[in-house]
Amino acid sequence: MKKQIETQNERPRDEISLDYVGITNFKTLLIITRNGRTFHLAPMIEATINLPANMKGAHMSRISESVVEIINDERNAHNSVEELSLQVLRKLKEKHPYTKAHLSLNFDFFYETETPKSKKKTFEVTNVTVETWLEEGKEDKISISVEYIGNTVCPHALENNPEKRTHVQRALGKLSVKGEVNQLPSFESMVKVLRKSFPAETYSILKTEDEQSVIDCMHDNPMFVEDVCRSILAKALQEFSKLKLELTATVKSLESIHKHDVIAKGSTKTDGK
Amino acid sequence: MKKQIETQNERPRDEISLDYVGITNFKTLLIITRNGRTFHLAPMIEATINLPANMKGAHMSRISESVVEIINDERNAHNSVEELSLQVLRKLKEKHPYTKAHLSLNFDFFYETETPKSKKKTFEVTNVTVETWLEEGKEDKISISVEYIGNTVCPHALENNPEKRTHVQRALGKLSVKGEVNQLPSFESMVKVLRKSFPAETYSILKTEDEQSVIDCMHDNPMFVEDVCRSILAKALQEFSKLKLELTATVKSLESIHKHDVIAKGSTKTDGK
Amino acid sequence: MKKQIETQNERPRDEISLDYVGITNFKTLLIITRNGRTFHLAPMIEATINLPANMKGAHMSRISESVVEIINDERNAHNSVEELSLQVLRKLKEKHPYTKAHLSLNFDFFYETETPKSKKKTFEVTNVTVETWLEEGKEDKISISVEYIGNTVCPHALENNPEKRTHVQRALGKLSVKGEVNQLPSFESMVKVLRKSFPAETYSILKTEDEQSVIDCMHDNPMFVEDVCRSILAKALQEFSKLKLELTATVKSLESIHKHDVIAKGSTKTDGK
Amino acid sequence: MKKQIETQNERPRDEISLDYVGITNFKTLLIITRNGRTFHLAPMIEATINLPANMKGAHMSRISESVVEIINDERNAHNSVEELSLQVLRKLKEKHPYTKAHLSLNFDFFYETETPKSKKKTFEVTNVTVETWLEEGKEDKISISVEYIGNTVCPHALENNPEKRTHVQRALGKLSVKGEVNQLPSFESMVKVLRKSFPAETYSILKTEDEQSVIDCMHDNPMFVEDVCRSILAKALQEFSKLKLELTATVKSLESIHKHDVIAKGSTKTDGK
Repeated sequence: MKKQIETQNERPRDEISLDYVGITNFKTLLIITRNGRTFHLAPMIEATINLPANMKGAHMSRISESVVEIINDERNAHNSVEELSLQVLRKLKEKHPYTKAHLSLNFDFFYETETPKSKKKTFEVTNVTVETWLEEGKEDKISISVEYIGNTVCPHALENNPEKRTHVQRALGKLSVKGEVNQLPSFESMVKVLRKSFPAETYSILKTEDEQSVIDCMHDNPMFVEDVCRSILAKALQEFSKLKLELTATVKSLESIHKHDVIAKGSTKTDGK
Repeated sequence: MKKQIETQNERPRDEISLDYVGITNFKTLLIITRNGRTFHLAPMIEATINLPANMKGAHMSRISESVVEIINDERNAHNSVEELSLQVLRKLKEKHPYTKAHLSLNFDFFYETETPKSKKKTFEVTNVTVETWLEEGKEDKISISVEYIGNTVCPHALENNPEKRTHVQRALGKLSVKGEVNQLPSFESMVKVLRKSFPAETYSILKTEDEQSVIDCMHDNPMFVEDVCRSILAKALQEFSKLKLELTATVKSLESIHKHDVIAKGSTKTDGK
Repeated sequence: MKKQIETQNERPRDEISLDYVGITNFKTLLIITRNGRTFHLAPMIEATINLPANMKGAHMSRISESVVEIINDERNAHNSVEELSLQVLRKLKEKHPYTKAHLSLNFDFFYETETPKSKKKTFEVTNVTVETWLEEGKEDKISISVEYIGNTVCPHALENNPEKRTHVQRALGKLSVKGEVNQLPSFESMVKVLRKSFPAETYSILKTEDEQSVIDCMHDNPMFVEDVCRSILAKALQEFSKLKLELTATVKSLESIHKHDVIAKGSTKTDGK
Repeated sequence: MKKQIETQNERPRDEISLDYVGITNFKTLLIITRNGRTFHLAPMIEATINLPANMKGAHMSRISESVVEIINDERNAHNSVEELSLQVLRKLKEKHPYTKAHLSLNFDFFYETETPKSKKKTFEVTNVTVETWLEEGKEDKISISVEYIGNTVCPHALENNPEKRTHVQRALGKLSVKGEVNQLPSFESMVKVLRKSFPAETYSILKTEDEQSVIDCMHDNPMFVEDVCRSILAKALQEFSKLKLELTATVKSLESIHKHDVIAKGSTKTDGK
């Protein structure tokens, strides 16, 4: 093959700088060791860098390479996705200059629990996204978002109903925290905040006695989507009070009496003292 | 341009006949007149024909043309999607020989109703799919599927709970009917079957008095996903008893006490006498 | 029914103010008149308001009511989604106090064109989102986002290939503009910017002569995803130079040689002089 | 808790038998050992049984339990998803009588390959679905479906273009095989069929020399969506000639010159001699 033309390094017709250029919906093998267990995950990945106004294109293969060289390698066997993310972006900087970069990894995360009465052990699955931002002259920032499938129980309907009947429905909660690397909580502690913030927890198995316990818990603790959203923020403020974090909570309720959903979103900060 | 080579008409390397070849995720303007009102819809369309073993490819542009020549034309102003579907497939047969063809149109369908107590008028939206099958030597068949967003109310939890508490959740129902063209019910009558088959109807607006009425209706009429599925089939058997139809119902319940869904599916037939 | 308890007006347990509370995935009938034609659309709607720290819940039914009272009513027959959006949020303010509100409407939008050589008339469909932000003490802001399905043609592969072969793929472009109400361009002019920014336009029908024209256009005009993104921004800067707007462009290319996508995103501003 | 009422065992109002009743969108931990490596997957699961006309409901918790008791247990450490699926359904039969049952597991599957010229090792991800059907009086049947992200290269445009230019695009292929348990091919052999059936393979990394090789391979081997579909069937017929299987192939091409997709689907059988 003759000498290759580096089209990417040419001057573009429209000299406008771009903020995010890279790969997305990229799946590859991530090997991670948590508590002595080796997990083989297939995270969904986005990795982007900024592109200066005078450069026509990013070298996309260098972006893919930086990701796979770090995360495919069993010898690296990371025990934190956060640490691994920083390594990917540092490796990328060696291969491809940038002043700003962003990496996102989305994957399933398991936690073990037991049902409330029959005490059956279950594995529950949540969805986690870890995003990392590097920018020249700024501190590295990482955000972690954890999703939880819970429920809402309408307190307004309950209050107004003579027989204490109400409507109940599945609700999807998300807690995001953003801060410097040494300020981040564990996925487990974020899951813990979410599990405690809904009218009741959800389980992959419930025997009749467990189901009754969950239902009673729901009705004793009725919550609007707004209440759940505030509860997530309040519990995160308490749980992470020693860390310096921006907190955002979103809750969406798949109403059982409507065809549409209701939503609540709010943000706050811990002061980390 | 020099004389064009008709690659599609060449012999393929692997002479295997194919059942469905055509276009999908195709959106174009559909103009239809219902009850004196002209609707401009953007249905999602799939149109396919069979391909004999000795023909390399279908002439895809003739498939698109057959669709748009019929459905874009305001002068055609159809008042039935079923009739229009047959016209598209007949037009297609003139342009492109086939022995088997299939057309699917998916679109939103409105119905007007009023809230149970405050009597507010609302427009509710459901999703409708009309599928048409033509096959040489067989009767033309059309299926209509209507989706409805309703709810389930657990009768098992209610029965076992001393305070008559239970769990409630959104549930997605679908009724499909399939038959010859002159045997098909109206979309409205299918929506009517679905609306009556759940513990309670759902509305885009509910004032407090309406909400209470819906909640009481739910708790007075608790239903498993299996109950709703059978109810759809039983009501369709009754409503469409004079038509000759294959009936299928599917209900999926977005459980409020679990992270997963539960599902029920069943089929039956009317004898059309 | 006895006097109703207004649970929403109670003090919440966790007194944290929320930014967005309301309804989402809400579909209802929107009647609009454009160029003398009445369209019946089913937009996907989100409508939210802020909730002060001392109020337990939003009155959700007042939010739904504000939407439907304006957009279902044939007598209102709006000719601009932007104007209608402001009316909805003003109506909502009468029913439910807020200091901040957001409304989003997402719907299909048609444009008519003709194929490049055979001159066949086609209707093409794009997706449009109109978002409106009202905030006390600030100017009302509206953003319009238009999506377009185009393509990219790799200039790097083309340059390096002795036979001038390259890889081509579908690419999804989006242009968003945000500004004050009297500064907004028409949907048509935004679609025009997008259509001109890709290597070639896409069509719902292409006869062989049209297909050849499109392919030649593609290869004569090879563009990275970065080039298309900059082209959208540059053409919008030119087309909307007399308006005062924030501009954002995003392009995602569904690579034909990879299982993943590549992406480019950038922002700029017109100065509106 | 007082003696529990078994609502599920009551007579339903509408005595209609149902074909599929159970859980869906169920995620839990699957531990599997392949080639000496232990993988922790989070498959998406559907598990259903038939319900006789005289029984009101299925005991849903017994369905979930049957799944988790088999697939969560590290001691079981299966080396085949097919074998594990049969175990789940047999366990389920002990807990809950049925005459018909269906289980579906959907998960990511990795294969290792190297880029064509630079010989870089990459891990590629495909999607696999294993479905198992048990029915009284019939042989157990299992189907395996493997998806692959490839491409199509229009031979018609290429033939008609004086400069041998054409349009290329991403295409999604799927091969499904169905047969008795001892007749099933490995996932690897199915992936192999798919990789060879497209104009060129796709990779997560391509250096310039690799990219050129892929592009030349594409243009030397132009294929319609119909050609790819037949190629999958022909190669599967050859590769699995000693097994007795029903084969189905589907290919969808995300056209770069259109906003819509084109599709081809066909079926055939191996005679297993």
